[in-house]
Amino acid sequence: MKINVYELLERVRTNKPVVHHLTNWVTIYDCANIVKVFGASPVMAHAQEEVADMAKIASALVLNIGTLTVDFVEAMKIAAKSANEKGIPVVLDVCGAGATNLRNKKCFELLDSVKINIIKGNASEVARIAGENVKTKGVDATDVNKDLIEIAKMLAMSRNCTVVITGKEDVVSDGKITFIVKNGHEIMSHIVGTGCMATSVIGTFAAVEKDLALASASALCCFEVAAEIAIKKSKGPGSFKTNLYDAVYSLDKKTIEKMQNIECILGNKSY
Amino acid sequence: MKINVYELLERVRTNKPVVHHLTNWVTIYDCANIVKVFGASPVMAHAQEEVADMAKIASALVLNIGTLTVDFVEAMKIAAKSANEKGIPVVLDVCGAGATNLRNKKCFELLDSVKINIIKGNASEVARIAGENVKTKGVDATDVNKDLIEIAKMLAMSRNCTVVITGKEDVVSDGKITFIVKNGHEIMSHIVGTGCMATSVIGTFAAVEKDLALASASALCCFEVAAEIAIKKSKGPGSFKTNLYDAVYSLDKKTIEKMQNIECILGNKSY
Amino acid sequence: MKINVYELLERVRTNKPVVHHLTNWVTIYDCANIVKVFGASPVMAHAQEEVADMAKIASALVLNIGTLTVDFVEAMKIAAKSANEKGIPVVLDVCGAGATNLRNKKCFELLDSVKINIIKGNASEVARIAGENVKTKGVDATDVNKDLIEIAKMLAMSRNCTVVITGKEDVVSDGKITFIVKNGHEIMSHIVGTGCMATSVIGTFAAVEKDLALASASALCCFEVAAEIAIKKSKGPGSFKTNLYDAVYSLDKKTIEKMQNIECILGNKSY
Repeated sequence: MKINVYELLERVRTNKPVVHHLTNWVTIYDCANIVKVFGASPVMAHAQEEVADMAKIASALVLNIGTLTVDFVEAMKIAAKSANEKGIPVVLDVCGAGATNLRNKKCFELLDSVKINIIKGNASEVARIAGENVKTKGVDATDVNKDLIEIAKMLAMSRNCTVVITGKEDVVSDGKITFIVKNGHEIMSHIVGTGCMATSVIGTFAAVEKDLALASASALCCFEVAAEIAIKKSKGPGSFKTNLYDAVYSLDKKTIEKMQNIECILGNKSY
Repeated sequence: MKINVYELLERVRTNKPVVHHLTNWVTIYDCANIVKVFGASPVMAHAQEEVADMAKIASALVLNIGTLTVDFVEAMKIAAKSANEKGIPVVLDVCGAGATNLRNKKCFELLDSVKINIIKGNASEVARIAGENVKTKGVDATDVNKDLIEIAKMLAMSRNCTVVITGKEDVVSDGKITFIVKNGHEIMSHIVGTGCMATSVIGTFAAVEKDLALASASALCCFEVAAEIAIKKSKGPGSFKTNLYDAVYSLDKKTIEKMQNIECILGNKSY
Repeated sequence: MKINVYELLERVRTNKPVVHHLTNWVTIYDCANIVKVFGASPVMAHAQEEVADMAKIASALVLNIGTLTVDFVEAMKIAAKSANEKGIPVVLDVCGAGATNLRNKKCFELLDSVKINIIKGNASEVARIAGENVKTKGVDATDVNKDLIEIAKMLAMSRNCTVVITGKEDVVSDGKITFIVKNGHEIMSHIVGTGCMATSVIGTFAAVEKDLALASASALCCFEVAAEIAIKKSKGPGSFKTNLYDAVYSLDKKTIEKMQNIECILGNKSY
């Protein structure tokens, strides 16, 4: 089963959806810029007095707790409630979950008080979030293994959402269908921001496609195909980042169809 | 009438004015860095307890409401009052005006409580601000049309300030003289931050030239000539941004005089 | 006396220490990214409710008052107390000291209420901090002169810490031994962020080496050798910054040993 990744990218470029972010202060520029370079329209706003209004003019909401404070999470809840009312997808990057009690507590507060449509993190972050619902063994694995697929599926089912676990290979599951995205390059883990950018790209694709597992897998595939193109022209992490933006901007149908590497697991079958 | 743009750039490089910013968290680095690369000295400070002191050692104040909060706007007012007392120019980027009630309300609060010397935004933002003073038709136009010039002139007269409307062509008016800056490249609208950077550059030139319409037009011209140079060496928005900094740093008299493209409208005459 | 700078870099790359930052909003991305590109693991967290926990999982704490607020400094104190308890080094960049009363006051509050292991700033900033302990004449010198070495030594002794004064040549002293780091390139002062990045690199090296003067001098040397390599391939400040990251990533033993330029002063002797 070959999914039509390029068609979704084209929809992003044509519709130019507004993607509202409450994200962290470290990578906020890159989150905005990658959305822009993909052809969509990022907006960053976090004042409690305006986030509900801003979410109302957006087509997706991206939350990222990377540099959370208590007040900031309150603003996230207000924005997410507004997004829920409007029916637009809400993506939560559980950045740093497991590192401190505050992060864990605030993740669960968000998950319990508003509807989160896509939970996204790396293996240890998502396992920490899943921990209260799913028994897991072996968390630090960065390669895809059965545990990660199982965690993604079970968390997706228990929270009735789509779960994205990024790593060397990414796992995307809505509990029924699971995608393994095998694109990308190791250099991505040597610069700050690729994880946050991936979340913003997922939000961007979720803004134009209701099947959120398909949207998430397509988003990661496009971003990571661009990374594979960029690394070939780069001499290190500095030039890689510059080239990554150029590569995203120039992504075309032929390249994506040639390079996309997504495995699809449905029931016990793999496609 | 050919204005001497280069002479102002030289003044920036010689005087190295301190430009105090209260700006947004998305583009704060680029705002600081473009001021630095132009040869001036950016300072970013927003604590209510120190902004008055900081404005006192600056030669211009740049305000940008891109990621405003209520407290942040209070700090802007304190800084602007201090700047007003010292007699240095205050630039306000009405970033996102029209998007939410909070933004509109806070723009008018700022305009009504402190002296803003330069109002800057894109067509729809400035039209929103002008809306309470000026009857407008047709707002979404991004090309210069008579409406935009009219809006700029009337807002400038009603607020007794200089108005800058950026777009494919930029309109700068102090109500008497109007400049149309025709430099720049379309790629600027495909990355995040060029609008905010332009505001910071305007603040930098306003720090060394009392004729604020001349300062604003010259600032935009220099920044956009650099963009035209940069795009020629670029493969996309990533390399464009890198090259933009290099081009600003290397701007020289010959290049500017050859490339500057500014129309001047005085009364009914165009020069 | 030739110090083994490369050995410390190798230790950073092998141990991948977690470096917790409470830094400014202008350069926060570059602070995180330079730590990452050096091979370590940056974490940025400033909520008063979590900074103690975060410091507990870190190997060094970096504080930078560049965009301080009163609340933010309270979070710094909580983080530093936690770091002091754990016994990990705390670096304070006294960014902008001297510019406003708030900055001066908060620097002294930090220095008096928690243990700061490394004080870092440029000549005028450090002289301002030293001013209450040391009589100084001539502060604005950017070249190394006897005054700067004297200020560094006396502040180090009076505060029982390591002092780093950056400039064309950097002075590092713990009161007994003093290093003059002569690497680097003038272009570093033409972009925003190299000072803050240097502080983060110092924190990174301090995370793996208990001799904090040695750690600081080695950190500056590596960063500045990379700058010397980067400038050779650059056409201005934009490409310089891109190339700086590439050069840091590729630093090897042979290059560092060939290019490192550190003078060591012990008592009245220079090595």
